[in-house]
Amino acid sequence: MTFVDRLKTANSQSWNAAVEHRFVHELFAGTLNDDRLAGYLVQDYQFCDAYVALLGAATASAPDLATRLPFARQLGAFAGAEDDYFGNSFDELQVPAEQRSKPVLRPATAEFIALMTSAGQSRSYPHALAVLVVAELLYRDWATSTLPWPDAPKHRGWLEVHNNPDFNAWVDWLVEQLHTHAPTLDSLRDDVAATFARAVELELAFFDACYS
Amino acid sequence: MTFVDRLKTANSQSWNAAVEHRFVHELFAGTLNDDRLAGYLVQDYQFCDAYVALLGAATASAPDLATRLPFARQLGAFAGAEDDYFGNSFDELQVPAEQRSKPVLRPATAEFIALMTSAGQSRSYPHALAVLVVAELLYRDWATSTLPWPDAPKHRGWLEVHNNPDFNAWVDWLVEQLHTHAPTLDSLRDDVAATFARAVELELAFFDACYS
Repeated sequence: MTFVDRLKTANSQSWNAAVEHRFVHELFAGTLNDDRLAGYLVQDYQFCDAYVALLGAATASAPDLATRLPFARQLGAFAGAEDDYFGNSFDELQVPAEQRSKPVLRPATAEFIALMTSAGQSRSYPHALAVLVVAELLYRDWATSTLPWPDAPKHRGWLEVHNNPDFNAWVDWLVEQLHTHAPTLDSLRDDVAATFARAVELELAFFDACYS
Repeated sequence: MTFVDRLKTANSQSWNAAVEHRFVHELFAGTLNDDRLAGYLVQDYQFCDAYVALLGAATASAPDLATRLPFARQLGAFAGAEDDYFGNSFDELQVPAEQRSKPVLRPATAEFIALMTSAGQSRSYPHALAVLVVAELLYRDWATSTLPWPDAPKHRGWLEVHNNPDFNAWVDWLVEQLHTHAPTLDSLRDDVAATFARAVELELAFFDACYS
């Protein structure tokens, strides 16, 4: 069992609740209403800054060039495709500019941004990985559901971003990195596990906030 | 006059000596001998790790998402095209694997790596920019010479990497960033200027080392 398998198991209740969330089912079914989707995307977009900063910090704290390059590729991919999806969907959903850039943050959003920022500023490669693995693997877990895909680009595009060969390989690589670079010292390992657990909780709270 | 214009002027002797270096003339003329080119590329390749880490640190220390994204794109581009050029050229020049990854570092190489690393670890956005502007703008300055281009991929490829529309736009953007984010406090500004000057000296020393 890898380190990540153990962490997933230890947090399986929240993990599965997020992966099987009503939001996910409605997204696949294409029944997610526009207000809810717009509210979700606006909040999710607020992570982009902290997420890109965290990828940058991981690039800087990774042990060598071979390990830095996958982060570099992911940064390049993010700056292209994912940023495009947000822009196109905001246009289609007629989200005003101010709402895109300066919305009121929901508590789960603000707390997740704080977690990403602190993981990046820690300069600790395993802490950065713990947050990234949750953010990416949990999303891949629901996006690789066997449900049929919706047609509308606003729904389908979000699946395409989180289930495609490049993304899937990137997530496998992240998981393997966290296994390889898990701290051997118990106290540090517990710290990384706590960061992982907090990130899972926040992912679930982030979906829940769409229905409260 | 922008901040970068003033820094270039203050270091014009070394800057011009690098841009007009014998190495550059031989590269354009296609007369650079293979041993010299291989030696140069092996040393240059040793920067990649510190350069990618520095771009990561700049991504993390940049002030906002709009400013992080160009670094993200450059990281993506670097992980693709530039890394390919090295691999292909090393193959063609029959550089052994150990020589690619663990050569004896020339003094200018070791000192430039130290400068990049310290700029990245400073978490100071203007310091990171000072090193990046020298590394990129000085290369663009010689690569945009009006001399005719050589045919062999091992020569031409190095020009293509440093003179193409994406690279040229990236360098313009870096220059503008350093102008915008130049510290206003004199002592910090002097620090950034000293980092810039040191980087220019090392670029010249790096070319000189190919002929010593």
